[in-house]
Amino acid sequence: MKKTAFAILTIALIIITSSCKEKAVEMNPETAMEPIESDVTFLSSWNEGASKQAIMDFVAKVTTEGAGFVPVSERIAVFDNDGTLWSEQPMYFQLFFAIDRVKMMAADHPEWKEKQPFKSLLENDMKTFMSFGEHGLLEVVMASHAGMTVDEFDGVVKDWLATAKHPKFDRPYTDLVYQPMLELVNYLKANQFKVFIVSGGGIEFMRPWVEGVYGIPKDQVIGSSIKTKYDYNEGNPVIHRLPEINFIDDKEGKPEGINQYIGRKPIFAGGNSDGDLQMLRWTDANPYPSFKLYIHHTDSIREWAYDRESSIGRFNVGWDEANEKGWTVSSMKDDWNVVYPFENSTK
Amino acid sequence: MKKTAFAILTIALIIITSSCKEKAVEMNPETAMEPIESDVTFLSSWNEGASKQAIMDFVAKVTTEGAGFVPVSERIAVFDNDGTLWSEQPMYFQLFFAIDRVKMMAADHPEWKEKQPFKSLLENDMKTFMSFGEHGLLEVVMASHAGMTVDEFDGVVKDWLATAKHPKFDRPYTDLVYQPMLELVNYLKANQFKVFIVSGGGIEFMRPWVEGVYGIPKDQVIGSSIKTKYDYNEGNPVIHRLPEINFIDDKEGKPEGINQYIGRKPIFAGGNSDGDLQMLRWTDANPYPSFKLYIHHTDSIREWAYDRESSIGRFNVGWDEANEKGWTVSSMKDDWNVVYPFENSTK
Repeated sequence: MKKTAFAILTIALIIITSSCKEKAVEMNPETAMEPIESDVTFLSSWNEGASKQAIMDFVAKVTTEGAGFVPVSERIAVFDNDGTLWSEQPMYFQLFFAIDRVKMMAADHPEWKEKQPFKSLLENDMKTFMSFGEHGLLEVVMASHAGMTVDEFDGVVKDWLATAKHPKFDRPYTDLVYQPMLELVNYLKANQFKVFIVSGGGIEFMRPWVEGVYGIPKDQVIGSSIKTKYDYNEGNPVIHRLPEINFIDDKEGKPEGINQYIGRKPIFAGGNSDGDLQMLRWTDANPYPSFKLYIHHTDSIREWAYDRESSIGRFNVGWDEANEKGWTVSSMKDDWNVVYPFENSTK
Repeated sequence: MKKTAFAILTIALIIITSSCKEKAVEMNPETAMEPIESDVTFLSSWNEGASKQAIMDFVAKVTTEGAGFVPVSERIAVFDNDGTLWSEQPMYFQLFFAIDRVKMMAADHPEWKEKQPFKSLLENDMKTFMSFGEHGLLEVVMASHAGMTVDEFDGVVKDWLATAKHPKFDRPYTDLVYQPMLELVNYLKANQFKVFIVSGGGIEFMRPWVEGVYGIPKDQVIGSSIKTKYDYNEGNPVIHRLPEINFIDDKEGKPEGINQYIGRKPIFAGGNSDGDLQMLRWTDANPYPSFKLYIHHTDSIREWAYDRESSIGRFNVGWDEANEKGWTVSSMKDDWNVVYPFENSTK
């Protein structure tokens, strides 16, 4: 994919922008369990090695009374979503959603047959579509993400997830979450961490499914957003989604979002790209001990392999800084014995 | 106080815009206790009567398997702060902070001696100060709340709270929290509610003390905010507070803020003024059973008595709507046998 496409896709994700399957699981310091120091069943999809050992050593340190102990209220963990908790290839899943949505809406918009950038998109002419650049993409994103209430959008996202399939795996997108990261989230929660998602993706695109899929409460999701407006609606209050950007939760936006939503620096941060670097730096600035984790996409067989030259999830400046500062860079190929949960059922 | 002052003070609070003393206490559904249905020790500062009974009946209903049961993840409670969790007279406490801060900063700003609106404020000439209207107030708020990092502001707020005294009670402002509301927050938490503050006050003004005083985690605070900017700062990342409004969490802003931060409608909402009406309506729109509580300031002896005509915390349209819709309006004078925690130690 070319640089222009990279720019467009990056902008798309950061531009694009709230239900529940399972109970939120949170820790109660009043009934605190003993710190879990070495129960490998919590991280069974992680191969024995430097990454797993570093994670477990850190958690043991901050949960054990002593020099490195961190109070429960300060145990904030933040994770990027695309490329860190689920896959992001061949393009951000939210972009598949936007395109599918425009195609579905086309019946109610006959004018799109002759109006760009919709015309090219409906004709699957991606080359022409891409020629409209950021402006074209913004039109598509706003057409697909705004102009409805927040409750309606929640339903639209759920409906899409229930039927849409990833082009490579022919499986629901929510199947493409990383088993080792699910285990890591649970491991941190078992050690009384409060876990947040901090993603460039849309906050309202994530909320309908994160509780059920990750076990992370929807109020612990930070993401990009469009503006909204409350309307009393003659006694039936609704909140409308407006075609205007509110907040872009990427790069510098990530520490700003963390401060706005959480109000304290994390002690654990996980990401996979240069867009996560500012979040990892902000975590590194915590006076408490902190852990910075980068997931390196090195598995071209089970997932995808990409880093410095990738148009999506570029991992270049962050990689150098991680090496320089001794942060943990974990190789999917080497460190994970399972990538997706469905592998366990097909092995 | 005149209407102009009302307008100014209202604007002030909503314009003005995160640390910790104690551990956050949250519920863990994995180790859930049995629903507490009638343990009066949880609401001992509430007199027996309709308000207390309605609260307890509601909580019993939503926590008991059956028609009115609400899953734990949906048990969201939201409370206004000024006038609902602590006092707001003779003016919003954050405004005392802003004025004190300007006076403290005056030594570094000799030009303020001749520059309005600072000159009149420094000379305690409130009449002249008020004559500058919203613009003057905005200048003071921005001078006192922006131009520093978020970490610095956290320290400034804590320093002020440690020394400032309320003019009537000659006690720290954080002494003027309502004992019955502390009990209500704890009662809801014990019944696995996740409790949020949703205040027109500044989010970063509340965060330094809400955990210690209310037991509400700082990431469960929603409030008005000014814009911020992340700065790598040559390897020592900081977030600067900018003199520009980001979000006003009052009236329509409350449901918008709830949607932005929480992503689901509450089932319990408490407020005391017309500024909370939209939040209560949003809660009332929840398809799950919901409870809408208005605190009515009726106690001119122990606290203050004010409602329809008040410049601060006006309770007029909301009162009528509450009566019309059968929401609970609780009279401080009649329903509370204690107002402030310090009364217990001086009785």
